[in-house]
Amino acid sequence: MDPCNVKIPALMDLTDENITANTVIVNSQGPDARLQYLMERLVTHLHDFARETQLTTDEWMKALAFLKDAGQISSDTRQEFILLSDVLGLSSLVESINSPKPANATEGSVLGPFHTNNAQFTENGDSIASPDKGEPCLVRCTLEDTSGHPIPDATINVWEADNTGRYDTQYEGETGPDCRGILKSNKDGEFWFKCVKPVPYPIPHDGPVGKLLGTLRRHPFRPAHLHFMIEREGALYLRGDPYETSDAVFGVKSSLLVTPHKVQDPDIAERYSVSVDDWDIQWGFVLVGEAEGRQSKE
Amino acid sequence: MDPCNVKIPALMDLTDENITANTVIVNSQGPDARLQYLMERLVTHLHDFARETQLTTDEWMKALAFLKDAGQISSDTRQEFILLSDVLGLSSLVESINSPKPANATEGSVLGPFHTNNAQFTENGDSIASPDKGEPCLVRCTLEDTSGHPIPDATINVWEADNTGRYDTQYEGETGPDCRGILKSNKDGEFWFKCVKPVPYPIPHDGPVGKLLGTLRRHPFRPAHLHFMIEREGALYLRGDPYETSDAVFGVKSSLLVTPHKVQDPDIAERYSVSVDDWDIQWGFVLVGEAEGRQSKE
Repeated sequence: MDPCNVKIPALMDLTDENITANTVIVNSQGPDARLQYLMERLVTHLHDFARETQLTTDEWMKALAFLKDAGQISSDTRQEFILLSDVLGLSSLVESINSPKPANATEGSVLGPFHTNNAQFTENGDSIASPDKGEPCLVRCTLEDTSGHPIPDATINVWEADNTGRYDTQYEGETGPDCRGILKSNKDGEFWFKCVKPVPYPIPHDGPVGKLLGTLRRHPFRPAHLHFMIEREGALYLRGDPYETSDAVFGVKSSLLVTPHKVQDPDIAERYSVSVDDWDIQWGFVLVGEAEGRQSKE
Repeated sequence: MDPCNVKIPALMDLTDENITANTVIVNSQGPDARLQYLMERLVTHLHDFARETQLTTDEWMKALAFLKDAGQISSDTRQEFILLSDVLGLSSLVESINSPKPANATEGSVLGPFHTNNAQFTENGDSIASPDKGEPCLVRCTLEDTSGHPIPDATINVWEADNTGRYDTQYEGETGPDCRGILKSNKDGEFWFKCVKPVPYPIPHDGPVGKLLGTLRRHPFRPAHLHFMIEREGALYLRGDPYETSDAVFGVKSSLLVTPHKVQDPDIAERYSVSVDDWDIQWGFVLVGEAEGRQSKE
């Protein structure tokens, strides 16, 4: 590109005072107005942060090294920048900004970095967990719209950690999906499956983000929960979990707390082929239609 | 860590409005007051950015993928986050914040990602470049303090790109340092060496940062320059370079522009063992003592 054709001010002799405005201008030559706006706000906040804090060269170098380390530890199954976004509250904020919240609908929650696309189709009543992955748990859910009509034939992705607090992808030499399933709601908007009772677990904290949490004296735990992706992503959190009110990634909403009970009733146990001592989670999801969601966002 | 011992508010039901204050509080448990302050400003700006721009989930995911890619392309000899910081004007701003600027002293400039610690000691008059690396150029400098006294025995690191616009570390199968040297000023504060006339060159733009520049319709060029590290880092830029006023990383200051001439004078050519057709760069550095620098910063 011939610099003589660039219609921007001379970017020389930049000072604390004029560098932000000039950087914004040089970033405004592209055709994408939204990107120009994002770059303008990004550069402004970034420069304001450095000026306000009188950021030292040493702090700046440490921050760049942190970002490099976060990228280097990332892989196909580990995205350290999602973790970073999670523990800084950004993921939860973005979810909140982008999810409509009509009064009576089920709220969304953070997706987390462990969703995969290799879960297998699971018939209602089947188990998503292989044997010995934890305490047996039955999950019974209904799916309806905000007018109370059942939603049949919906596709529901569910995934959870096992009794060691690990997702299948966190094991060396992974042999396939486990504690994951893809279900369909029946004609009455019902879906149900067997799994293991979720336990609280730490987010991966052997990397740069974990070190940051340690330095900040923050624990890395997420309260016990089950993930659901039903058109949009959500989660259910187990009431009474020790980390209920201090989720490392800020995902918990009281409207998403569920109390697991024991099955107890022999008729229920027989109907769902479980034991009376197994855990039982029941939940009714209320979903927003697309048009309704757009309206709520505006 | 027992969550019951954490003296923070219940981090549940976080909304657009309360998530920032609560994230700041949970990051305030560590012993380092400066880090607490940096995290507070960082989280505040990050959340404000997301709220102001109503950042979409898609944009957020793209940003996280960009950061991951930047980390993955980084190596021992390539630090993509320094490049990112450079093209966003942050490096230049941090340099400006951290460098004292008394009226008559030589200004600093961005360090850039190509400084290495393997340069060899070079006697005054020797060449830092191996043969055929570009147009021969003599560089003659003086070093003095702001009171005009020569600074003898100072250590000066110099480095530059060759005629192809590449630093030695950018070649595959690098065989050692080239176009780099470590000099000492003599008793009169003088140092001089042979090198090749610097040429403008693009910053590495085959990675995520280069793609970003392309999307923003920005060229990746830096004007021709020589790097110097004398107690603190600086650079000299060649006057009249086509990229003089549009440096991709915002480093140029008019006080650091130098005009290369041809040697012409046969006496000079003989004294420095160069040809009369070689290029000749002359410069007088004025350095600030440490005490003086502290004073200027306050």
